[in-house]
Amino acid sequence: MAVYTDVSDDELTAFINTYAIGDVLSAKGIAEGVENSNYLLHTTEGFYILTLYEKRVREEDLPFFIGLMQHLAQKGLTCPQPVPLRSGEMLSTLAGRKAAIVTFLDGMGVKRPSARHCQAVGEALAQLHAAGADFKGHRVNALSVAGWRPLFEQAGHRADEVLPGLYDMTREVLEGLETQWPDDLPSGVIHADLFPDNVFFIGERLSGLIDFYFACNDAWAYDLAICLNAWCFEQDGSYNMTKGQAMLAGYQSIRALGPAEIEALPLLCRGAALRFMLTRLVDWLNVPAGALVRPKDPLEYFRKLRFHLRGESARDYGLS
Amino acid sequence: MAVYTDVSDDELTAFINTYAIGDVLSAKGIAEGVENSNYLLHTTEGFYILTLYEKRVREEDLPFFIGLMQHLAQKGLTCPQPVPLRSGEMLSTLAGRKAAIVTFLDGMGVKRPSARHCQAVGEALAQLHAAGADFKGHRVNALSVAGWRPLFEQAGHRADEVLPGLYDMTREVLEGLETQWPDDLPSGVIHADLFPDNVFFIGERLSGLIDFYFACNDAWAYDLAICLNAWCFEQDGSYNMTKGQAMLAGYQSIRALGPAEIEALPLLCRGAALRFMLTRLVDWLNVPAGALVRPKDPLEYFRKLRFHLRGESARDYGLS
Repeated sequence: MAVYTDVSDDELTAFINTYAIGDVLSAKGIAEGVENSNYLLHTTEGFYILTLYEKRVREEDLPFFIGLMQHLAQKGLTCPQPVPLRSGEMLSTLAGRKAAIVTFLDGMGVKRPSARHCQAVGEALAQLHAAGADFKGHRVNALSVAGWRPLFEQAGHRADEVLPGLYDMTREVLEGLETQWPDDLPSGVIHADLFPDNVFFIGERLSGLIDFYFACNDAWAYDLAICLNAWCFEQDGSYNMTKGQAMLAGYQSIRALGPAEIEALPLLCRGAALRFMLTRLVDWLNVPAGALVRPKDPLEYFRKLRFHLRGESARDYGLS
Repeated sequence: MAVYTDVSDDELTAFINTYAIGDVLSAKGIAEGVENSNYLLHTTEGFYILTLYEKRVREEDLPFFIGLMQHLAQKGLTCPQPVPLRSGEMLSTLAGRKAAIVTFLDGMGVKRPSARHCQAVGEALAQLHAAGADFKGHRVNALSVAGWRPLFEQAGHRADEVLPGLYDMTREVLEGLETQWPDDLPSGVIHADLFPDNVFFIGERLSGLIDFYFACNDAWAYDLAICLNAWCFEQDGSYNMTKGQAMLAGYQSIRALGPAEIEALPLLCRGAALRFMLTRLVDWLNVPAGALVRPKDPLEYFRKLRFHLRGESARDYGLS
């Protein structure tokens, strides 16, 4: 949630003129997205979002992200639709950064999701998986099981600064996951970061999915495990079975989970919790002096992980 | 430029329902205004700005600011127009802060103002002075000459940390201004902070004035002196006579300056430069640890002040 790059009005006007979206009337830096700078543009044609890609997004991944949003939007998914330049290209440069313009989506993230919200997210996630099935792009998930050990080693024994014993507990969980992680589940494009910030609602109606900058190819059921972690726990750390049931039912109303996916669900939930715990832990231990953003609490995901270590079957998550 | 207060979707929806502006479709925290939190709202009726007043704005001043914007908008000035609640009141409360909704204005601040921009600002400033002449509210300018010595004493000898000799030079200028400051110039409502951030343009057409949270009653020509300081110097510290001429001509095309105002102009320019130098100096010397905002350079205004110390008549600023 930040605006990192300041763009002058002259630069912006010249930039907008390379698109066929009318004349710029207003541009407001908005507090949206952690990784990039975002502006809400008003032009004589309508409203758009201008994104400037900051250094945490790799330039070589941008064609995958932009191409995916285009593909999904064409399939009818409500996600930001990239707007081409007059030249036909989708990516440009502004203020020394790669930049793109996408359509503006109404809606707001929910702070306290209800079971109805969770059901809608389950449906939308399955729609995303279905719509992405024939997308030609490919991007390895750098934050799947093979990426966890390097993160764990980066944190190392300093993990115990956050919670005494965290290092040993994490190593044990990691070793178990490395041994058991399945590599033959139905796969395709996943969002990989479908947190409440990235799903817009108008009331209880889901109005759009945003922020595809972690999207990659991986097991669909792993994406669902990420969502169960992100949406179905209460602030006190308890798992809300009603929300879990709603999300799983919503997902299965569009795409039925196969036996191997159902079998793997508790393990996938453990992996998803570990993945977010580890990235948060590394961020937590590496806050630069004078940082503008307070890192997220890794222990939130440690508590979720502990819940998952007790889970034995998909029934424990509300699968009927 | 900040969003200080985070508002939940439920709170926001309930809040919006107390206004007759339709249902909320979207709310984006925007990077606008240094003192308050601002959200750009999209509702089924249109676009609005929601402002949450943070602690630097005194609650007892809010009726003056809101009433003034209402008054000026009714007189045809393009400024944000406060939107009443269904109850008829203009001020509400959200997330523990006083809050108001105003109409959305198109346009953008200019980074490199041209003489045409300066002329338009001169005209708009005179229109603001004329439109505010019969406004009933009254607010003392706490940052006029009587307020400068307390600021100077707050900085004290630490001024020399910023520039050796700054303490003695500032004291000398301050003493001169305290002796000579006029108290009988034509007065009324002034904006008091009409910097390029606070004036919107679409191309070279001025589309609106914003941020009335320093507005107060004071000499109109002092407001003009603030604008000459804010708009007519180049980045290298030189005074751009063409821009000064354009601003003064723009102003006088709407409201002619009287002989006493013309006589006082160099002194008022000195005072305006000192006022911004002093507030910046105090901010500079009191940056809290972990501050999110880098304070503005007080020496920019010291250099302007030095220019003004050489000015003898309004001719030196481009008055024809």
